[in-house]
Amino acid sequence: MATLLPTRDPELRKDPVTNRWVIFSPARAKRPSDFKSKSPENPNLNSSSCPFCIGNEHECAPEIFRVPPEPNWKLRVIENLYPALSRNLEYPIGQNDDSVSELGRWDRVVPGFGFHDVVIETPVHSVQLSDLDPREIGDVLIAYKRRIEQIKGFDSIKYVQVFKNHGASAGASLSHSHSQMLSLPIVPPSVSARLDSMKEYFNQTGKCSLCEVQSKDLLINETTSFISIVPFAASFPFEIWIIPRDHSSRFDELDNAVDLGGLLKLILRKMSLQLNNPPFNFMIHTSPLQVTDSELPYSHWFLQIVPQLTGVGGFELGSGCYINPIFPDDAAKVLREVNVPTSG
Amino acid sequence: MATLLPTRDPELRKDPVTNRWVIFSPARAKRPSDFKSKSPENPNLNSSSCPFCIGNEHECAPEIFRVPPEPNWKLRVIENLYPALSRNLEYPIGQNDDSVSELGRWDRVVPGFGFHDVVIETPVHSVQLSDLDPREIGDVLIAYKRRIEQIKGFDSIKYVQVFKNHGASAGASLSHSHSQMLSLPIVPPSVSARLDSMKEYFNQTGKCSLCEVQSKDLLINETTSFISIVPFAASFPFEIWIIPRDHSSRFDELDNAVDLGGLLKLILRKMSLQLNNPPFNFMIHTSPLQVTDSELPYSHWFLQIVPQLTGVGGFELGSGCYINPIFPDDAAKVLREVNVPTSG
Repeated sequence: MATLLPTRDPELRKDPVTNRWVIFSPARAKRPSDFKSKSPENPNLNSSSCPFCIGNEHECAPEIFRVPPEPNWKLRVIENLYPALSRNLEYPIGQNDDSVSELGRWDRVVPGFGFHDVVIETPVHSVQLSDLDPREIGDVLIAYKRRIEQIKGFDSIKYVQVFKNHGASAGASLSHSHSQMLSLPIVPPSVSARLDSMKEYFNQTGKCSLCEVQSKDLLINETTSFISIVPFAASFPFEIWIIPRDHSSRFDELDNAVDLGGLLKLILRKMSLQLNNPPFNFMIHTSPLQVTDSELPYSHWFLQIVPQLTGVGGFELGSGCYINPIFPDDAAKVLREVNVPTSG
Repeated sequence: MATLLPTRDPELRKDPVTNRWVIFSPARAKRPSDFKSKSPENPNLNSSSCPFCIGNEHECAPEIFRVPPEPNWKLRVIENLYPALSRNLEYPIGQNDDSVSELGRWDRVVPGFGFHDVVIETPVHSVQLSDLDPREIGDVLIAYKRRIEQIKGFDSIKYVQVFKNHGASAGASLSHSHSQMLSLPIVPPSVSARLDSMKEYFNQTGKCSLCEVQSKDLLINETTSFISIVPFAASFPFEIWIIPRDHSSRFDELDNAVDLGGLLKLILRKMSLQLNNPPFNFMIHTSPLQVTDSELPYSHWFLQIVPQLTGVGGFELGSGCYINPIFPDDAAKVLREVNVPTSG
């Protein structure tokens, strides 16, 4: 049974039944016959054995940039040691044309070219993102922006998904605070669905659906440039969106990173206090690359935070529909009223 | 902080940004301010304290039917004690018209009318579905079918999602072997997307995409009436689909339940042997109610089995795209070759 499989390049496939794109990524595989179910382990490295700690840079995949550019760095952007996509793959010109993806055949396949980067948010093992001050969190956000600006130069990259996994059960394989950026040769399904939905709203009302969010009942906190809400149809209990007040279709237009850093810090601290430091994910929802802003008057970027409080079962997997036991206005009220100590 | 919230009826909302339906179900809630993160606990009841065991029927919500209809039952279909939807809610006529759901406004809301049923697959606490013989598993499948036939009579029910959660981390809150049926007043998003995709394939090729599955590389096992495969773009490692050979758009057309029961048993046993008895979900993907077969020449039902081997992180939540470390033909080869002992 223990057949060693030949190395295969990563590949994206779209299923003609579910219409979903899947990334096949053998670099992240074990041998299939060794693939056994086991409990998730909470990685419990200390600063001497953690590759993300300052001083252990040689244990990491190559660095893309660091801030500041000196040995005593505050953050680093590096390649993922186990990338889901390959930056070394030859990308066949024309293979991702609409003409191919519309064929509706079993062989809707795109080579797995792309970038999978890690943003190490702090040099210190025990520091979490919400421990940083607003300016330092702002530096992390600016690092995302700077990396997206580099990736824009690659015509075959269609979307950059920025995300953070905090806690083993939220998908973090290392506890040292970090986030990830996966640059894809396709526009992923959730992005297409979101843009279609926002476009429909815009065509019917003449307005951007996220500029329209005004409900006081859903509001948690606000700053000069951003609001935080529990969305009207939150899929998850205590799901939170942080939205720029002024219309902006791309995250990389961000010009008030410290203001966003402050609100993100406040919301993460409230969530941790109220929900007992839950595992969580955050995701930046922005516009595809290679599309001009004037083509997307209806697209408005936002940051989504999802505490991992409930598991996903067969109903959600089967229907794509979520069950949320808490109405958004109730969750917003609870989060609005969390008392955050001013120090610490 | 410990404000007791007023009771609210369940409600479905569709978000104008994500275009996703969410069920808000306070019957499944705790008080929000008590909502704290904690590790999933493996329910460890024994047969004296388990409400699904024979003899403890009085601890359950009302029964819908049992097989056979006598005290010494083999399986029971009952109401869920914590239903996600309410069967007692007045369903406003016309509220789910297309005219409303197409408004594209913040208030795309449907009252949470529906049925949430539990199928207790065996009277014995320690018996799992794969321990039953093919005829007994067939009886479970026939119970699904019979319940769907009852629910067809409710015009406001648009879809019945049949699913099974096995293991705490796959969403099972009780370990006694059971499955669930959630009858919804909407056609859920994954069903619409699947039908749209199959229709596109049909319009382009004149063929049903699931009648077309022929690849020997993806085949695991086959019987007279069914094949089991790893799908071409499996979202999850070792995901398995069981598909009727002959075109059939609805699960409730099933007329060879013992044959399907035998294949389901074999596949569940192979999965358990190869993957160390993993938590898993299975879902039946069928056609909406209130639509005639002749309107759906492209729809072909199937049963999807997903072992829970990898978690979902921010990338999957954000993009709707999954990363699978194992190519489907490799997974199919491993599963094809699992040696299942003939006894037991």
